[in-house]
Amino acid sequence: MPPAGRKWRVAVLGATGAVGQAFVRLLADHPWFDLAVLAASERSAGRSYGEAARWLGGDAIPAAVAGMTVMACDPKQVDADVVFSALDASAAQDAEPAFARAGRFVLSNAKNYRMDADVPLVVAEVNPSHLELLDAQRRARGWSGAIVTNGNCATIVAVLALAPIHARFGVRTIFAATMQAVSGAGYPGVPSLDILGNVVPFIRDEEPKIETEIRKMLGGMRDGAVDPAPIQVSAHANRVPVEHGHTICMSIGLRDHVPPEEVAAAIAGWRGAPEARGLPSSPAIPVLLASQEDRPQPRRDVDAGQGMSVVVGRVRRDPVLDVKLVAMGHNVIRGAAGASVLNAELLAARGLLPAV
Amino acid sequence: MPPAGRKWRVAVLGATGAVGQAFVRLLADHPWFDLAVLAASERSAGRSYGEAARWLGGDAIPAAVAGMTVMACDPKQVDADVVFSALDASAAQDAEPAFARAGRFVLSNAKNYRMDADVPLVVAEVNPSHLELLDAQRRARGWSGAIVTNGNCATIVAVLALAPIHARFGVRTIFAATMQAVSGAGYPGVPSLDILGNVVPFIRDEEPKIETEIRKMLGGMRDGAVDPAPIQVSAHANRVPVEHGHTICMSIGLRDHVPPEEVAAAIAGWRGAPEARGLPSSPAIPVLLASQEDRPQPRRDVDAGQGMSVVVGRVRRDPVLDVKLVAMGHNVIRGAAGASVLNAELLAARGLLPAV
Amino acid sequence: MPPAGRKWRVAVLGATGAVGQAFVRLLADHPWFDLAVLAASERSAGRSYGEAARWLGGDAIPAAVAGMTVMACDPKQVDADVVFSALDASAAQDAEPAFARAGRFVLSNAKNYRMDADVPLVVAEVNPSHLELLDAQRRARGWSGAIVTNGNCATIVAVLALAPIHARFGVRTIFAATMQAVSGAGYPGVPSLDILGNVVPFIRDEEPKIETEIRKMLGGMRDGAVDPAPIQVSAHANRVPVEHGHTICMSIGLRDHVPPEEVAAAIAGWRGAPEARGLPSSPAIPVLLASQEDRPQPRRDVDAGQGMSVVVGRVRRDPVLDVKLVAMGHNVIRGAAGASVLNAELLAARGLLPAV
Amino acid sequence: MPPAGRKWRVAVLGATGAVGQAFVRLLADHPWFDLAVLAASERSAGRSYGEAARWLGGDAIPAAVAGMTVMACDPKQVDADVVFSALDASAAQDAEPAFARAGRFVLSNAKNYRMDADVPLVVAEVNPSHLELLDAQRRARGWSGAIVTNGNCATIVAVLALAPIHARFGVRTIFAATMQAVSGAGYPGVPSLDILGNVVPFIRDEEPKIETEIRKMLGGMRDGAVDPAPIQVSAHANRVPVEHGHTICMSIGLRDHVPPEEVAAAIAGWRGAPEARGLPSSPAIPVLLASQEDRPQPRRDVDAGQGMSVVVGRVRRDPVLDVKLVAMGHNVIRGAAGASVLNAELLAARGLLPAV
Repeated sequence: MPPAGRKWRVAVLGATGAVGQAFVRLLADHPWFDLAVLAASERSAGRSYGEAARWLGGDAIPAAVAGMTVMACDPKQVDADVVFSALDASAAQDAEPAFARAGRFVLSNAKNYRMDADVPLVVAEVNPSHLELLDAQRRARGWSGAIVTNGNCATIVAVLALAPIHARFGVRTIFAATMQAVSGAGYPGVPSLDILGNVVPFIRDEEPKIETEIRKMLGGMRDGAVDPAPIQVSAHANRVPVEHGHTICMSIGLRDHVPPEEVAAAIAGWRGAPEARGLPSSPAIPVLLASQEDRPQPRRDVDAGQGMSVVVGRVRRDPVLDVKLVAMGHNVIRGAAGASVLNAELLAARGLLPAV
Repeated sequence: MPPAGRKWRVAVLGATGAVGQAFVRLLADHPWFDLAVLAASERSAGRSYGEAARWLGGDAIPAAVAGMTVMACDPKQVDADVVFSALDASAAQDAEPAFARAGRFVLSNAKNYRMDADVPLVVAEVNPSHLELLDAQRRARGWSGAIVTNGNCATIVAVLALAPIHARFGVRTIFAATMQAVSGAGYPGVPSLDILGNVVPFIRDEEPKIETEIRKMLGGMRDGAVDPAPIQVSAHANRVPVEHGHTICMSIGLRDHVPPEEVAAAIAGWRGAPEARGLPSSPAIPVLLASQEDRPQPRRDVDAGQGMSVVVGRVRRDPVLDVKLVAMGHNVIRGAAGASVLNAELLAARGLLPAV
Repeated sequence: MPPAGRKWRVAVLGATGAVGQAFVRLLADHPWFDLAVLAASERSAGRSYGEAARWLGGDAIPAAVAGMTVMACDPKQVDADVVFSALDASAAQDAEPAFARAGRFVLSNAKNYRMDADVPLVVAEVNPSHLELLDAQRRARGWSGAIVTNGNCATIVAVLALAPIHARFGVRTIFAATMQAVSGAGYPGVPSLDILGNVVPFIRDEEPKIETEIRKMLGGMRDGAVDPAPIQVSAHANRVPVEHGHTICMSIGLRDHVPPEEVAAAIAGWRGAPEARGLPSSPAIPVLLASQEDRPQPRRDVDAGQGMSVVVGRVRRDPVLDVKLVAMGHNVIRGAAGASVLNAELLAARGLLPAV
Repeated sequence: MPPAGRKWRVAVLGATGAVGQAFVRLLADHPWFDLAVLAASERSAGRSYGEAARWLGGDAIPAAVAGMTVMACDPKQVDADVVFSALDASAAQDAEPAFARAGRFVLSNAKNYRMDADVPLVVAEVNPSHLELLDAQRRARGWSGAIVTNGNCATIVAVLALAPIHARFGVRTIFAATMQAVSGAGYPGVPSLDILGNVVPFIRDEEPKIETEIRKMLGGMRDGAVDPAPIQVSAHANRVPVEHGHTICMSIGLRDHVPPEEVAAAIAGWRGAPEARGLPSSPAIPVLLASQEDRPQPRRDVDAGQGMSVVVGRVRRDPVLDVKLVAMGHNVIRGAAGASVLNAELLAARGLLPAV
């Protein structure tokens, strides 16, 4: 945490979009971070944030923020120690390295650098040790800043549900079928004519992300590199007419063939990596075990832990592998903006951010 | 088919419910069957069908039917050769055997007798040979009629998609995650407060049905009995805010480890059992291969083949087993009423119905 | 308010339903009221509340409440000073007078007694003076308790939007078209097959309630009786696929033909009856004026003022009458449970409740 | 109708959009018209229609059409007698007059020229006499072709419901609150994040269109000009989560203050202008009177008359004016593409199209 009375200056890149707005909401009154700069595309730059952003929530735009002038996504115009990036892949490709080169800590939600060997792909409660990659990253790339990435929003939900199980019993095989909320596609995103009363069993590029990112996130560190977990993953990605909350059905094969009761107990008792506890954005319980037989449900459970807890239910025997379950989490909070903010808090707690 | 100018007299049990109404629609103008009797619960008996049924469709109740008096579900009051049952399990338990005992051919959608060894569980295009069980059934039970059952509505959709693959390459393992329409729960069925903007990852008793019925339906006949297919099935059943059409994501392991292209070709070329072709309710192509990468979708494809075709898409390599795909079919038509009517036509074509 | 350290004992009748659950949520931790008894139908009586109620929210049932035993709706079994009734009309008919006769203050949401001349129909911020009817009510009926009623949920939303306008300019004519949320029909309520992707332009008995209740609520007191406001109302009631929040389009004719700007200013400046301000459930601003041209919207604005504020937008000139606008409020909170709790607080503040 | 064996060559402008696709569906197998040219924006021109159009329906693109090359919206490239325009206002502004100048009959859905004094705004069954404006139009503008316009999609639904009433009893005042389907905004149109589980009480520029177009359409011809009907209209436009079908609640004041039964009888007996009967796209009954108390409903009634009939229900006494009712019609068919095709058939039947 910062010295008393001090905060790190932070910026949001892509601040006008759906994830950008979630960042603004989470950072508008943050105890450690001062939301100093909002940046977006050239089209928005120069306008006030209140004009440039089509505010999607029912709450008002935080007053302090509405009048801020939107800047371009250029390190020279963005005076901040930490940069939260909600940029899409095409904008992130050049902008994120430019900020890292200019000495900023970039917390990225884009897919571009996630799978690079020297880029940490971190869920704070699951694999904080992957931040050890940062030294190598900065050395190899000659950056005074760094890039830390989030996983894909569905992957993060899956990984949190899997982490307690993998830690105890060794996950070896996963079948995952997702039912993803429309907010996962941003705004304007999914046309209503495509999704009202419908299911779209296809989300471009989503399945390979889930299949590869899980292995990296659940891997350990060995000799300064991530040793991917030896897990085979088959993913089916679907879009459903739900506002927020990705639901994932999983069949799971384990190294240790324990019964569902032991799996449920492992989930119920898990609190995540000690260093991720007690941070401003940490949920009290990162993975909640639902007690009702028909839960989790996105509309009813999406705000658990203020959107930062994943809810798991229906832990039962799988007729083919070992265990079946359902996981659900808030794709915009837990799966994107909230995950980045928590990662930045983790960096601060580990003393990795510059002195403030 | 019946002699020229003659039709079999048929009845619908449970005629006022959602599936019952689908039967009425399909039978109101059928070339082989004369819809002679509508029967329902005591509450409806004695009223005109137009009063007793809360008609759910946008079409008008067929005029010939609206004025018919609803009868009780009692063989003495139901003068018909063939009886289509849309009864729920509690009513079907006694009523269906009573009709079979009284000499009627009962085409059932209830779960009660599906897994009995001497009861055929038939999809006309897939396993018509299972009708050979009828002799043993009638002998063992002393019935002059018989019971022929449909599978669960999700199972039927899955089995049609699997049949072409199993016939060629031997299906051995299945992971199936369903996204089922609300009409699968009948009327009033799912409360809107439970499903608007939501997913409910639980349908009572659904997963075991899918896991067991597939094996029976895809099994062959040996020594006068069904030899279940040696397939392991893991099912995840979900309810989604869709009106009609169950969507099923499947990962499939095969005896012959062929690539997806061969699986797609097998599906594209399949026309089902020869004896099921050309019947009044047979779709021209029982399993359609979608050409667009984001199909099938329930709202857009549910009426394919007038609701009798299953649409399969996204046939692709599975990272763990052999192939992944998505199947979708109309749960009320293909998965219930239409399947029963087609089965009755099959009985007629095989000469199993009484002379008319 | 009660003396320090004391609270009134309160009960909820019909505690297991959708409105009953809203009462439980609002009363579980109330500064003035101690939720002492939960009562419901015979079917639920004797069971724990946690078992008897199918809890609809995403939050957990308040711990103190889950273990309470549900009582029958019988004054002898319900030891409480104030009784909040979420009973439907058939149950309320006898139960509510029985409680009033037994000395309880009944805050009712049923339609049965709303239009009785000696029964106050009160929105706390709008017509608290109608509570003067209580003396006559108790005298005439020989009750030691009393009944105070809420309006229909759509009426309450309309009346709050109209009150600031009527007070200043005299409302004379109203055309109101509602778009009402499914939660207004309770649970299980509206079948999903009826409302997914649909509009149902009919809600039984709803339009006459809106057309008559508005006149009573906006009426003044004269000679100890309510003098209905001289307003003609034409209402169109529709059900739409929205979870919570009734939206109402209104065209309004005024005694004083002022332009929309003055109407908007009257709304913006209105704070309601002074005696209703500062109560535990009073929203800071009872009627909020939306600043965006496409608001209010139920999904985005329904929780304004914790569900107790009505949001009004699009105040503009009407080509036929004087002004058009849109009003939206939370039908379960502002339109039912929250309105009753606020009315009880108003009774307490006026010293009408028995000493505690 | 055309001479035996001959058809008029027709084109669709804006063929790739949602309304354009509806035109393609209606014209692919039309008895009088040969769909000879598909034209769209520069972005699509030169590609095959199958590639350029994201086909929204569940049906396949008509085979004859999929391979056609999309042309630019330039009269030189569009060899056709009749041009159906699904262009939006910005594209229509120049293109439609250019086609009329080049001798084509333009059937327009754009708003640009609807209210011009010499441009007919026609619903075939309601005001075919307005086609008399064409002579003046062609003379004044020096065009060898002409422009005939459709009304706004909500206006057309309202006007059909009003026409039988106006003809008999003289409509004088209308309050109209619409609940409009998302397809009314085209594709991609309304973002799902805006409308899932929501109502948006605002559609840009929609209310003035409804308020003015009704008067023109229901007006008579006098001295070669349209004499607008003396009707005051107040409209409230709302977007709801419905795929197809605009629902409109109306309160109506009449010159003759007849009771609702007479109004209902006038609607039930109306068959529209004789010259619009029996055309290929004419519905047998242009305005259907619903018999159930909770109808019309968009999802259930939208396909009445193959999407060309408007369904009216709930005709009842209005407490302020004379009568209240609900009207519903298919916004893409009856409210746009189908209305244009019917208008072209009307031109053909009147001998206004060039010899073929």
